[in-house]
Amino acid sequence: MKKLIETIPNFSEGRNQAKIKKILSCFENARGVTLLDHHKDPDHNRLVVTAAGPAGPLKNAVLNAVDVSVQSIDLRKHKGEHPRMGAADVIPFVPVGDTSMEEAVALSRDVAKEIWRRYRVPVFLYEESAADPERKNLPDIRRGEFEGLAEKLKDPKWKPDYGDPVPHPTAGAVAVGARMPLIAFNVNLDTNSMAIAGAIAKAVRHQNGGLRHCRAIAINLRQRGIVQVSMNMTNYVSTPLYRALEMVRMEAGRYGVNIMGSEIVGLVPMDALIQSSAYYMGLENFSADQVLEMKLAE
Amino acid sequence: MKKLIETIPNFSEGRNQAKIKKILSCFENARGVTLLDHHKDPDHNRLVVTAAGPAGPLKNAVLNAVDVSVQSIDLRKHKGEHPRMGAADVIPFVPVGDTSMEEAVALSRDVAKEIWRRYRVPVFLYEESAADPERKNLPDIRRGEFEGLAEKLKDPKWKPDYGDPVPHPTAGAVAVGARMPLIAFNVNLDTNSMAIAGAIAKAVRHQNGGLRHCRAIAINLRQRGIVQVSMNMTNYVSTPLYRALEMVRMEAGRYGVNIMGSEIVGLVPMDALIQSSAYYMGLENFSADQVLEMKLAE
Repeated sequence: MKKLIETIPNFSEGRNQAKIKKILSCFENARGVTLLDHHKDPDHNRLVVTAAGPAGPLKNAVLNAVDVSVQSIDLRKHKGEHPRMGAADVIPFVPVGDTSMEEAVALSRDVAKEIWRRYRVPVFLYEESAADPERKNLPDIRRGEFEGLAEKLKDPKWKPDYGDPVPHPTAGAVAVGARMPLIAFNVNLDTNSMAIAGAIAKAVRHQNGGLRHCRAIAINLRQRGIVQVSMNMTNYVSTPLYRALEMVRMEAGRYGVNIMGSEIVGLVPMDALIQSSAYYMGLENFSADQVLEMKLAE
Repeated sequence: MKKLIETIPNFSEGRNQAKIKKILSCFENARGVTLLDHHKDPDHNRLVVTAAGPAGPLKNAVLNAVDVSVQSIDLRKHKGEHPRMGAADVIPFVPVGDTSMEEAVALSRDVAKEIWRRYRVPVFLYEESAADPERKNLPDIRRGEFEGLAEKLKDPKWKPDYGDPVPHPTAGAVAVGARMPLIAFNVNLDTNSMAIAGAIAKAVRHQNGGLRHCRAIAINLRQRGIVQVSMNMTNYVSTPLYRALEMVRMEAGRYGVNIMGSEIVGLVPMDALIQSSAYYMGLENFSADQVLEMKLAE
């Protein structure tokens, strides 16, 4: 594997096609960078880009996109369902393959520094890049949103990691950080009882005593007449998918409920599937090097 | 994915390092071709190369290696445990990723034709490339080996697909063909009874009424004090690994024997692991496109 990093920058523009196109072109036209996916939502009024590449080209592509967003998005006029505090709102970097978390953290710091230096937008470092455990959690940083930002930055506790404690007048502030890939993993149950799905979600999630790197809520799939435990697995290395699945199965058993199936939404690292295969097949001494496509991707 | 083909050519030289090096260099020095693995065995007196690349560069690399083998290996003086009929003995081509079997068959025919035209070594097409079902099976083609080849080729039934019905004086003949990747998949049992492993191997293999694309034998792992069902899965798309594993589990149950673990020897296509994950996790609508590394390999 080449040393690749994935980024999933979120921009506060989900409606204006011309602006969206201009942001995407920063990734499409960057040599060595692959635009993997993008999702624009007019209700959220937000654009989520997924791209990957080596640190150097990826840094340039991200900075160009931040430049476009600062020039074209005015948060004073922005409305949408999704919480936001900046034109470029949050920029996570995720290590891929042989890349270490340290390398992703280094890139995030580098990008953060340049965002302040070039565009005068204050930056918070979050997740693995956070200097302070209080700043790991994005919702804490973003609480109060753009509208509350000027007031919030006056609090010494919320001094930005880079930049002056004053929001950019139109572009607010941005959170930049390295994190593990997040896997959206849903398990469908053969019941329509939201009470049961809720009890299982509570049992498996970290917040209420469940698995360390698992967030979970109950979702009603009305059209199929069933319910779902919808999970965000925030560190699949420490808390593998199969463990969450088997814990859902175990908890469902007490209600006489079975698992109908599961789904992975969006991208999943190959390693996460290898973990599951190795667990269920009892594979001994298996290495990702044995996967033909991984060797070919070198 | 790029359009890639894998090849696993076998050459009748497992001892002379200089000759082995010269054969390997044909793959190492070929632009666009990746030398994935090689295994040389002095007892077998055989070199097994694994390489991959697009059809054009791979063809040139293989032909160069055949050239080297024809010039440097003299079958009249060759001794080894492994059956063989040629200096280059067998050259399988395996479609990878989006490549179709038809494309691998086309490459095998192209290479076969050139081997006769350039080096005057007669060629048999085997497996998916075979013109005749009688010629699908490599052991049938190779039966009698180099020493019996001159006599065998006189039989009109064994007229080569390319070339005159006379062996090359020192390089014999070669089998070339396209086939599905073969996965070496072993399942370990918590018993030391070879009788039980043998009965299970018989139950799961195609030959005796088991799974279509499964060959199986019993192996005694004396050092661990257990036995193993050792399988070659010859078409993992039609006969997935998990099906063989679960069938071994089912048959073992009647003897009160459990599965201790399994192992995959050598390379395995990612699709085969995705199949298993999807089966055991009950994944709905999962596609290989969702695997991050596959997207990055484009």
